[in-house]
Parts: sequence; C-alpha cells; structure tokens
Amino acid sequence: MSSVSFAQQLATFSTEMVTVNLGSRSYPIVIGAGILADLGRLLRGQDLGHNRVAVVTDSVVGKLYREKAVESLVAADFDPFVIEVPAGEEQKNLVWLSFLYDKLIEGRIERRSAIIALGGGVVGDLAGFAAATFQRGLPFVQVPTTLLAQVDASVGGKTAINHPAGKNLIGAFYQPRLVVIDVNTLATLPQREFLAGMAEVIKYGIILSPDLFSLLEQQLERLLQLDPTLLTSVIKTCCQLKALVVEEDETESDYRAILNFGHTLGHAIESATNYQQYLHGEAVAIGMSFATQLSYRRGLCNATVNERVQRLITNAGLSIMVPKDLRKEHLLSGVATDKKITDGKVKFVCIEDLGKTRFESLSVEELSDYL
Amino acid sequence: MSSVSFAQQLATFSTEMVTVNLGSRSYPIVIGAGILADLGRLLRGQDLGHNRVAVVTDSVVGKLYREKAVESLVAADFDPFVIEVPAGEEQKNLVWLSFLYDKLIEGRIERRSAIIALGGGVVGDLAGFAAATFQRGLPFVQVPTTLLAQVDASVGGKTAINHPAGKNLIGAFYQPRLVVIDVNTLATLPQREFLAGMAEVIKYGIILSPDLFSLLEQQLERLLQLDPTLLTSVIKTCCQLKALVVEEDETESDYRAILNFGHTLGHAIESATNYQQYLHGEAVAIGMSFATQLSYRRGLCNATVNERVQRLITNAGLSIMVPKDLRKEHLLSGVATDKKITDGKVKFVCIEDLGKTRFESLSVEELSDYL
Repeated sequence: MSSVSFAQQLATFSTEMVTVNLGSRSYPIVIGAGILADLGRLLRGQDLGHNRVAVVTDSVVGKLYREKAVESLVAADFDPFVIEVPAGEEQKNLVWLSFLYDKLIEGRIERRSAIIALGGGVVGDLAGFAAATFQRGLPFVQVPTTLLAQVDASVGGKTAINHPAGKNLIGAFYQPRLVVIDVNTLATLPQREFLAGMAEVIKYGIILSPDLFSLLEQQLERLLQLDPTLLTSVIKTCCQLKALVVEEDETESDYRAILNFGHTLGHAIESATNYQQYLHGEAVAIGMSFATQLSYRRGLCNATVNERVQRLITNAGLSIMVPKDLRKEHLLSGVATDKKITDGKVKFVCIEDLGKTRFESLSVEELSDYL
Repeated sequence: MSSVSFAQQLATFSTEMVTVNLGSRSYPIVIGAGILADLGRLLRGQDLGHNRVAVVTDSVVGKLYREKAVESLVAADFDPFVIEVPAGEEQKNLVWLSFLYDKLIEGRIERRSAIIALGGGVVGDLAGFAAATFQRGLPFVQVPTTLLAQVDASVGGKTAINHPAGKNLIGAFYQPRLVVIDVNTLATLPQREFLAGMAEVIKYGIILSPDLFSLLEQQLERLLQLDPTLLTSVIKTCCQLKALVVEEDETESDYRAILNFGHTLGHAIESATNYQQYLHGEAVAIGMSFATQLSYRRGLCNATVNERVQRLITNAGLSIMVPKDLRKEHLLSGVATDKKITDGKVKFVCIEDLGKTRFESLSVEELSDYL
C-alpha cells in the first residue's frame, strides 16, 4: 500500500473526498457509489496498528451489508469481529453500551484496533461513544448507511447515548479516522427515512449556502430518484459545509450552534411524541419551517426567503405544520429541558437570508408567542 | 473578581502554582496548606458559565471535608449540589457512573456547571469520567485529598472506570479546568496510604529528576512527618515533572508511557491478589524495584543506581519483594492481559540512570526470566 498514495487509490474508485481539517485529528470522508466494497483498502491506507477490527452494526443493516463489509476487510488482511445490536433508537443506552464493552473484550479488541460503525445514526452514536471510551479511545471509522448519518454524523465527532431524562445526554466529542460513504446503500433505505434525511440537506442550504439551496430547488426530482452522481455531489457539499462550521468551533462553544437550526422545536416535537410519531428529520423540517416563520415575523428575513424555504421543504415531501394535537405547554416544556438552554433562555437560530444565520436569545415565553 | 488577577489572588493565599500547558486545554494546579477554604474563590476566578455546581465525594472524605468545601463555594456565591458515593475502588464501575448521571440530572446540573471531585483517585476517576461524558463534557475541577491523587491524577487528564475484565478499561482523556491541592488534607490520610503515595513521588525522581531523588534521600524524614512547606514543594515538583511529560504526549501515543515505570508488574500484582492485598502504590513500589533490578541485570544501569533505588523505596517503608506466595504464572498472565500490550510484547520501562528511561520490548517469556 505504501507506494500508492491515498489520493491515487481514490482516483481508481472514481470517488469524491472531503478532508475535515482539525489539526492532528483531521480525517478524510470518502464518498462514492459502490465503495463499500473498497472499505478494506481504504482502511488499509489509514496505517492502523492492528489487524483485528470490530464491526458494529444493527440487525437490519447487518443483514444487508455486513457480508460485503467483512469480505472487503478480509481481502485487505483485516481480521474483523462483528458485533450486532438490535435496530432502533431505544437501544442507544447504557445497557447496550455495556453489552458493546463486553463484546469488545470478548473479541480481543486491542488498543490500536479500529471500531467500524456500519449503519445509521444510532449505530454510529453508540459505536462512536464506545470507541471514544473503550481503553480511553480506539481508532473509529464510520460507514454511514442512511442519508441523515451521511450528511450529519459524518462530520463533527458527536457521539452519544440516551438517558431516560433526555436524548444524547451522555456522550463525547470524538473524531473518526475515516468516513466511507457508499451512496448505493441509500437504495435500500426506506423512502420515508430518505426524505427525513433530506431535511438536514435542506438545512445546509438554508443556513450556509444559497447555491446548494438553489440546486435543491432545481434538481429535487433527480435527487429523490437517487441519481448516484448527484447524490455523491450533494452529500459531498453537505459534508464540506458542515466541516467548515466544525473546523471553526469543534466543541460547540458558540458558532457551531447554527447547526441546531430547526432543532429546538424539532427536539421538542420528538420528545412530546415520545419519539414514536416523527423521524428526527421530519421533526426538524417542522422546526425549520417554524424558525423561518419566526425569523420573518420578527423582521429578520424577507417574505421571499420565507416562501422559498416553506416551498422547498414541502416539495421534498416533508410537513411544515406543527402538529395540532400537541399541547403547546407540552412543546414548551420540551424546549425548556433542551440541553442547550442557559439561564432560562434558548439560543434560538434564526435566519436573515439564505446562508445567513443569527442567534436570538429567547425566553420560553417569547417562543410561545409564535407557536 | 474581575479586577484582581488570578496570580494576585494566589499571592494572598501564599500558595504555589503549576500551569499544565496544553494549548486551549491548559489549566492551573494550585497547591498550598489550608487552601480548601479558598476553593470557592479559586473557582470564581475560572469564569464558569453557571453558579450551580456538583461536588462529588465519597462517604469517608465527605465526612471530613464536604462541609468546608460547600462553605467555601457558598461564600463565593456558588450553589453546590453534593453527590456522595460509597468509598472504595469497587465503586468505580458502570453502576455508580449511572448513579452519578442520575444525580447530575436530579441536581439540575447544566451544560456550563462545574463538576468538582473532592476525594482520592476513585472519586477523581469516576467524577472525571462523568464530567467528560455528561452532556458531552462539563467543566471539571479536581480537589485531590490523597498524596497519590495529588501527584498522579492532578496531571494528565486520565479518567476511567473499571470493567470486570480489567481496571480502567473504560475512560477518556479529559483535562480539568482547575486543580486545588490542599496538603493539609494529608493529615487525615491513613499513613499506609500516604506511604503508597510516596511510591509515585519516588517514581518521578527515578524516571525524571536526579535532583528530586536526592532531595527525597535527604529529606525523607521531614516529608514523612508531613512538613507542609516541604510537602507543597515536593508535590509541586511532581506535578511539574508529570506536566512536562503530558505536554509532550497528551494521549500516550509514545513517550508518556515512561510514567508506567513499575506499573507493568505492579498492575499484575494487584490483579493477582484481586486488589485486596496491596494498595496501588505498594504494588508499584515492588514493580519499580523489579524494573530497576531488571535494568541492572540487563546491563542498562549500574549497581549504584540500583542500590540507591532499592534503598530509598525501603526507607520510605515500602516493600521491594515480589510476594512469594504469588504463583509466577499468575503474575505473567496479569502482564499478558495488560492493556499496554501490543502483538504479544510488553513495552517495558527500564532505566539507564536516575532521570533516564528507556523502553524495552519484552515478551512475557523474557520477563519471566527475571521473576
């Protein structure tokens, strides 16, 4: 491997690459159609200390892709140990984390072994937190198989598990060594989940890039038909945009919070419906619609921006309506227990224009007026 | 507070300060006699985001010092919430970590609240890991009350819990914002624990500083009598020495491993006796004696160095004898499961002279020859 550069290897796969620049914790995201088959070769390029690696996946994704991943790893002389957890957000807790630790020990995963997360956000968060904390940190590799995980979890190093008192209450900032995004895995993703992932794609357009936003307006149909070249390009753009934010503010001391656009109300909706009724992206879509309305009504952005946002979200098959059956107090109490609250005020992300955000410090009462 | 600099405040307490330089994660260690009473003022100098703070302590240390800590915090307008865990290494596990998370939620600890560890290594490790992972990381403050924690855990940011398969198997590197060392707390420390802490003090002399080693040879009696000025100075030196190592290699990719001098066999002895018979420092003392013997027998250091090391350890009231009743195989299997092992070889820390270390890559069989 050593005589062929990483970039040269990539060229032969006709893939795209984004580098997340975080000093000594920088890492590449490799994006392309069918590159799961090259996972082993890509990982070999990372100069890991050990051939024994753990592959963490869930029962659903495992059925579809674990064999392909294992084959690719074995072909590159790795010795993979597969750990399967049940699928579903409700597994992202201390109990399954503890199960994972036990399995890592059983599988003789050593200090320089990689942990590879093969799956969606739950697997990535759970395996990532295990990688961050087992033996005080092992090399971590993400192979996200949902659109949401590909455009969101690939960049930023957020790992976490849930606590009965709240989602993602326990976690760590921990950067992966490598992210491999095979857009072909989106073909097996249920359409509802694909659309929910589109909410985050649209978010990047709204908060960071009028160009991406326009592209989405123009090419939405082709994207929803899973055109692999367009998917690769759009996912690459999303990763680049998020990387710029995270490079600026790795641990969310301030600026990074713009990524929470649509998430304050989104989280409250998810929580008020016990995470049963809305997918994360679906709730975020409603939250983005609300945040844009609020921005417009506070005179921060103009009517055209507001209309374009509402239209694109709707055209992507996502709802913009705050669910009528949810009691307002229920939503507001969800906002009040959000972990981003400080001294009773929410740092609410508004927009002034496409690509231009602004923080507003709002009390729960003030928010209530717009609901 | 803002008009008085941190250094000026310190001057009024007649204390010593060491800065651990880790870029944006740099922090001060404040050392002195009686400064627990100034904890609140020192913390106020840290510009935290929130007055609500958690104080994590154990049943033994809590009885002695929680009141003093709380008084000092309240006097500085903090709103402390005390969480007490039972004393003892056996509490450093996932169960008590989970208890801690529940209590942090119950105590309304927010994202910018500090977690203060008041106690020995167990409390520091457990509270530190909770601080590293609750809400993906809260400001962490250490108030170590044992000699071992003061000279070892104060610097380096290692936090961890145990797993049935091994000690400290789960953890994170997480730097505190502030460390406050009140040497007066050593007056209530059982003498056996003080002497065990001395093992780590001696270690810094052996691996990093012939000057400290000579000082210990000359002033051992005064130190064992807990002379506060000498204690302050020696603890300061130990923190400075460890800081130099950690600044060089924060996450133990290589050089930092010199701090494991005496620990390979030490850990194996602790493990072979189920952590019941030897305090950590007592086992490390035997390990240091063994590592020095091994260095001498391999021709790495001369007889005088070996004799001085053996004499100082013995004079400090620590044993240098590998326990006769331990079966050799039992010790070797402990070495073989050490988490620092790679491809079957142990990175064993030897010495060439006082202040001069050298790594030897030894197989378990080779080690066996010296036992």
